[in-house]
Amino acid sequence: MNRLRTAYYPVCSAWAELLRRPQNDSDCGLQQLCSTIFAEVERRGDEALRQYTAEFDKVDLERFEVTEAEFEQAATIVEPALREAILLSKHNIEAFHRLQIPRKCEYVNENGFRCWQEARGLDRVGLYIPGGSAPLFSTVLMLAIPAQLAGCREVVLCTPPGPDGKVNPAILWCARLCGVSQVYKVGGVQAIAAMTVGTETICKVDKLFGPGNRFVTAAKQQALGCGVPIDMPAGPSEIMVVADESASPAFVASDLLSQAEHGQDSQVILVTCVETLPQEVEVELERQLLELPRKAVAEKALAASICVVLHNKQECLDIINSYAPEHLLLSVKDYASWIPDIRHAGSVFLGNYSPESAGDYASGTNHTLPTNGYARVYSGVGVEAFMKRISFQEITQQGLAYLGPAIEVMAEREGLIAHRNAVRKRMEANGNELE
Amino acid sequence: MNRLRTAYYPVCSAWAELLRRPQNDSDCGLQQLCSTIFAEVERRGDEALRQYTAEFDKVDLERFEVTEAEFEQAATIVEPALREAILLSKHNIEAFHRLQIPRKCEYVNENGFRCWQEARGLDRVGLYIPGGSAPLFSTVLMLAIPAQLAGCREVVLCTPPGPDGKVNPAILWCARLCGVSQVYKVGGVQAIAAMTVGTETICKVDKLFGPGNRFVTAAKQQALGCGVPIDMPAGPSEIMVVADESASPAFVASDLLSQAEHGQDSQVILVTCVETLPQEVEVELERQLLELPRKAVAEKALAASICVVLHNKQECLDIINSYAPEHLLLSVKDYASWIPDIRHAGSVFLGNYSPESAGDYASGTNHTLPTNGYARVYSGVGVEAFMKRISFQEITQQGLAYLGPAIEVMAEREGLIAHRNAVRKRMEANGNELE
Repeated sequence: MNRLRTAYYPVCSAWAELLRRPQNDSDCGLQQLCSTIFAEVERRGDEALRQYTAEFDKVDLERFEVTEAEFEQAATIVEPALREAILLSKHNIEAFHRLQIPRKCEYVNENGFRCWQEARGLDRVGLYIPGGSAPLFSTVLMLAIPAQLAGCREVVLCTPPGPDGKVNPAILWCARLCGVSQVYKVGGVQAIAAMTVGTETICKVDKLFGPGNRFVTAAKQQALGCGVPIDMPAGPSEIMVVADESASPAFVASDLLSQAEHGQDSQVILVTCVETLPQEVEVELERQLLELPRKAVAEKALAASICVVLHNKQECLDIINSYAPEHLLLSVKDYASWIPDIRHAGSVFLGNYSPESAGDYASGTNHTLPTNGYARVYSGVGVEAFMKRISFQEITQQGLAYLGPAIEVMAEREGLIAHRNAVRKRMEANGNELE
Repeated sequence: MNRLRTAYYPVCSAWAELLRRPQNDSDCGLQQLCSTIFAEVERRGDEALRQYTAEFDKVDLERFEVTEAEFEQAATIVEPALREAILLSKHNIEAFHRLQIPRKCEYVNENGFRCWQEARGLDRVGLYIPGGSAPLFSTVLMLAIPAQLAGCREVVLCTPPGPDGKVNPAILWCARLCGVSQVYKVGGVQAIAAMTVGTETICKVDKLFGPGNRFVTAAKQQALGCGVPIDMPAGPSEIMVVADESASPAFVASDLLSQAEHGQDSQVILVTCVETLPQEVEVELERQLLELPRKAVAEKALAASICVVLHNKQECLDIINSYAPEHLLLSVKDYASWIPDIRHAGSVFLGNYSPESAGDYASGTNHTLPTNGYARVYSGVGVEAFMKRISFQEITQQGLAYLGPAIEVMAEREGLIAHRNAVRKRMEANGNELE
């Protein structure tokens, strides 16, 4: 039996059903749990954090803030090869994200007025980094570097403690490297609650970022309801690989597997016009699966995956835009000619030597991307997500004389006479009233 | 009795209470109403729209789409003075917003890889424009112009019909002028529901924009819950005027009133270090109130307003950043020196000849701005709100040889072996596998 279910030449109207994502079952019990934890953290502050940390993380903590001594100890543990890798990655992420800092845009009208925008970093942002079996230190880089470039004044990081009450040293090393202000050993719903409502130790933040399991995801939705914005709505990670005859089945299989190992709900899709490719990829999947410690997870994800064989490039483009994949691999020869027609995707990997893991770790792009079709509307995280823009305008007396008549007639037609008068009073003053 | 309650030299710790915004009472009845209308529109489509339009707008409509004949008729009604004003306004809005179109940012690493971002307009956006007593045709400009510059493929506009089954001609004229694809005569919760779930006539959109009363605001929250993003959370409009001895009390009063006439929950705040200013503004308020048709509304808003007298510029800056006003008027002589320290505000108006109404209508800035303290985190609407960014990366074989070791070690330490293998397979292939 094939691992990859293959659909040959499905009609366009059948695509949506073929590529349907798993439904988000809105779990009332989960929402109730979040509400309870938020209320308790709001009412009892650190005490509630201590209780939940004992309950969920099985560790009794007196204080949550990582100390200077702990940072120093972590620095001695992270081995040189990993440090070097992180530094190379940081260099690229920083270089690419620095280009995203918005330029000041100014409109000067020769009649005597000018308007411009200035971007400002958010005051205080909160990053959530999962711990446990997969300590995502790479996500520290992906969130803390743009926060620092944006000029955020305070960057707070929460991550669950291990049973020994400690935080993964690579997480601490990355946090220190990228200017994180404080790291707290708090995880799960209680961490999101603490950053949303504030406690004695942990300050309320202006915006929340970071991945997490379904508990953390539900907690972020709760935070949003409390008026604290979040980076983006979450869903299972996904990849769409589009491959032609220039693609290597071994490479394609390795890309599908690197998505599949994330979790059993990962979405893995192969699209091709080469009828023989699915079988070739299949052989490679079998071979490569054997090498994976997370084989069981990958197998489950593959069982729900699909391969779609289509007639031509246009159909491939249509299915890409209809699915709006988080990750899109274009393993096709003439990929440059595809780019203008790609309207919906989070991050696109071009050619045979751009695996998704390059963007996950080291090439410079961000790996916090819109899933679940949200690539239709949302961007991945970048410097802008840590900033907002303020508009400014400076109008001279001549400038207002030029704009005034238009403002007056429009305000009047909208029935806003005080708006009109704010201009009229100034025009009547005619330069006499003020020096 | 003074209209403006004045607080002299309050201590910093008292500011939050003095400037407290009205609490958003989360109205369960309102949410229930929205849920019902959304469910009905989803189930019965246009038929439900017809029913609600009859019920709420008191008009029976067979079809909702504005016809070509209606657009043509509207064009004959809008008088030349208003057209001219709108064209001048459009010119400035377009010029300023055009500068906001994100440039392509590309990072080229000499070791053989490059990353870049491209911005794409959203496919289909929905604009809501209130009708009735205040037909906000200016908001059509503020939303449709950036949508058009962003390259949105379809711009749908919903606005409630009058009792005669017609739409305000200025709204139609602006819509046509700014490339709106379709205008539908549907208002209120049912309009937001239609654009969220889709009906026979009205397509589901990717994102919702536009102001509205508390019904529309609640409906937009419901849309957000259904996975359709919105421009920003809404709240009553607000102005903070900071004035020194160079300010004209008449101008200041006119600015406070132009905010106050919006609605009785409008927030109006005057901040100054000039002890005598509140009384001078007071006199002008009395005088200018007499000229206003919306006097009763403005009076109610003023009754809840406040004037704060502070010691110095630093305190003024602190209160600005603590309140994060939607509109900030800096009627101070040396305003240029204030700008770098303004961290939280939606739109800032500099000097004596920059009234808020200039930005509301004609100078080029957008008037869709974050209220209710959201200026701490959100930007006003701009071209970016109608776009998203896609990341691209192109890695050569040499590029991957350069990045590969770092990716491998990081993936391994995160326990993601398939991620590592996606690189390893390519490095092992060593150029032999592919041409």
